[in-house]
Amino acid sequence: MMNIDLAVTWEEARHADLAGRVAAVIDVLRATSTIVAAFDAGAREVIPVKTVKAGHDLAAKLGRERVVLGGERGGVRIRGYDLGNSPLEYTAEAVSRKAVVLTTTNGTQALTTAMLAEAVLAAALTNVGAVAAWLHARGQDLTVICAGTEGRLSLDDLHCGGMLISRLLEPGHVRNLSDGARAAMDWFVSNAGNLAYVLTSCSHGQRLAALGFAEDLTYCAQVDSSRNVPIWNGRAFVPHRVPEREPASPRTPDG
Amino acid sequence: MMNIDLAVTWEEARHADLAGRVAAVIDVLRATSTIVAAFDAGAREVIPVKTVKAGHDLAAKLGRERVVLGGERGGVRIRGYDLGNSPLEYTAEAVSRKAVVLTTTNGTQALTTAMLAEAVLAAALTNVGAVAAWLHARGQDLTVICAGTEGRLSLDDLHCGGMLISRLLEPGHVRNLSDGARAAMDWFVSNAGNLAYVLTSCSHGQRLAALGFAEDLTYCAQVDSSRNVPIWNGRAFVPHRVPEREPASPRTPDG
Repeated sequence: MMNIDLAVTWEEARHADLAGRVAAVIDVLRATSTIVAAFDAGAREVIPVKTVKAGHDLAAKLGRERVVLGGERGGVRIRGYDLGNSPLEYTAEAVSRKAVVLTTTNGTQALTTAMLAEAVLAAALTNVGAVAAWLHARGQDLTVICAGTEGRLSLDDLHCGGMLISRLLEPGHVRNLSDGARAAMDWFVSNAGNLAYVLTSCSHGQRLAALGFAEDLTYCAQVDSSRNVPIWNGRAFVPHRVPEREPASPRTPDG
Repeated sequence: MMNIDLAVTWEEARHADLAGRVAAVIDVLRATSTIVAAFDAGAREVIPVKTVKAGHDLAAKLGRERVVLGGERGGVRIRGYDLGNSPLEYTAEAVSRKAVVLTTTNGTQALTTAMLAEAVLAAALTNVGAVAAWLHARGQDLTVICAGTEGRLSLDDLHCGGMLISRLLEPGHVRNLSDGARAAMDWFVSNAGNLAYVLTSCSHGQRLAALGFAEDLTYCAQVDSSRNVPIWNGRAFVPHRVPEREPASPRTPDG
């Protein structure tokens, strides 16, 4: 029987007790969607770093030719970096067999906060079913950490968090939902058929569309397109591939 | 045309731009319910302070006999204080014509954060209709600041925030809802008929019931029992009485 907690921002997560729990970090737009895309394209590992300089230093240490430097500040690519934070840039040609060093405005902070937990994974709409299967098999208490956007609740992340929790709510498997987990579930259940609208109407989605990243919203909305669960091994995220299995009940396209 | 924002914790509100806006602070369990109760009982003003010592100092400065010291730490009364943070203690006998100096764990922090706004008021379920009428007449952009509980989202505050926003959503009056405002509205609409359950099942409500304050939950759930809007005047909250008027449409008991 799992207990499920959810924080709507990484700052809220600093007030959560993560000891002995699994943390699932969600930054749909776009850090965790990008990490999943990197593994789908054959990246060997993804290492989040807090600062632009830390990315350059780590690339030099690991060997520049073995590393893809990716990330954004204010939504756009960083000077001297190979890629931005658009998952569409993370093609096999760009990242296959490489180590991706990634720094993003919100996602990296959330991932760093999560590292107080016993286990950490990265979740997005694209891998939500694989993440749910992995969590279900592990059976440990869960804290969902929504990255949020610049300290604020972000509906893209809340929606994905609610979708993940809804996938875990089989009878007899969940003991308690925290206030935040209930709010996210409630949002998801009310808006389950409107994923595309949620992503295009939320504050962060509107900002990305204005920056020219409208295609990213479509990419990030591909529910269950990947079976890769990025798992933190203490040094990097590495891909864990969860085999497909017949779902217990039919899913709608939106979740 | 108003823009409405909502922060689920006072810490999230620190990332909101409050300049030129009205801030409505909500701490249903129990700081803002208690402030409304104090005015219902005839208190002259309510002054929030951050620390226990600041309360003692202010009482000495204002004259101890003119002041009621109220507040809590961990939900219970502070040693040397006259009252705790239960609105049921704020009777006419206890507070009429007095200045109430109040310090609480979550509510005081939220009120302090709010003071960056152009105008600040205290909202609870008990005065939600009066607050909506006051805000409607003023017509300024609004940021709802839910106090939350020890840094975490709290469903009692989210519910009240959603109820307040729902009262403002007449056609042509609202331009934009932020992500947080949409999440709160959604929660409220889904749970409008279940206020008593929301208060008794949320994390903070369960903690208060365990401390022996179950009657407070019933008190704080009295939607629209007061017409007092506590308004910050730069030094203290003072009561502004909003006259009753015929509602545009019938209200259910839960909102």
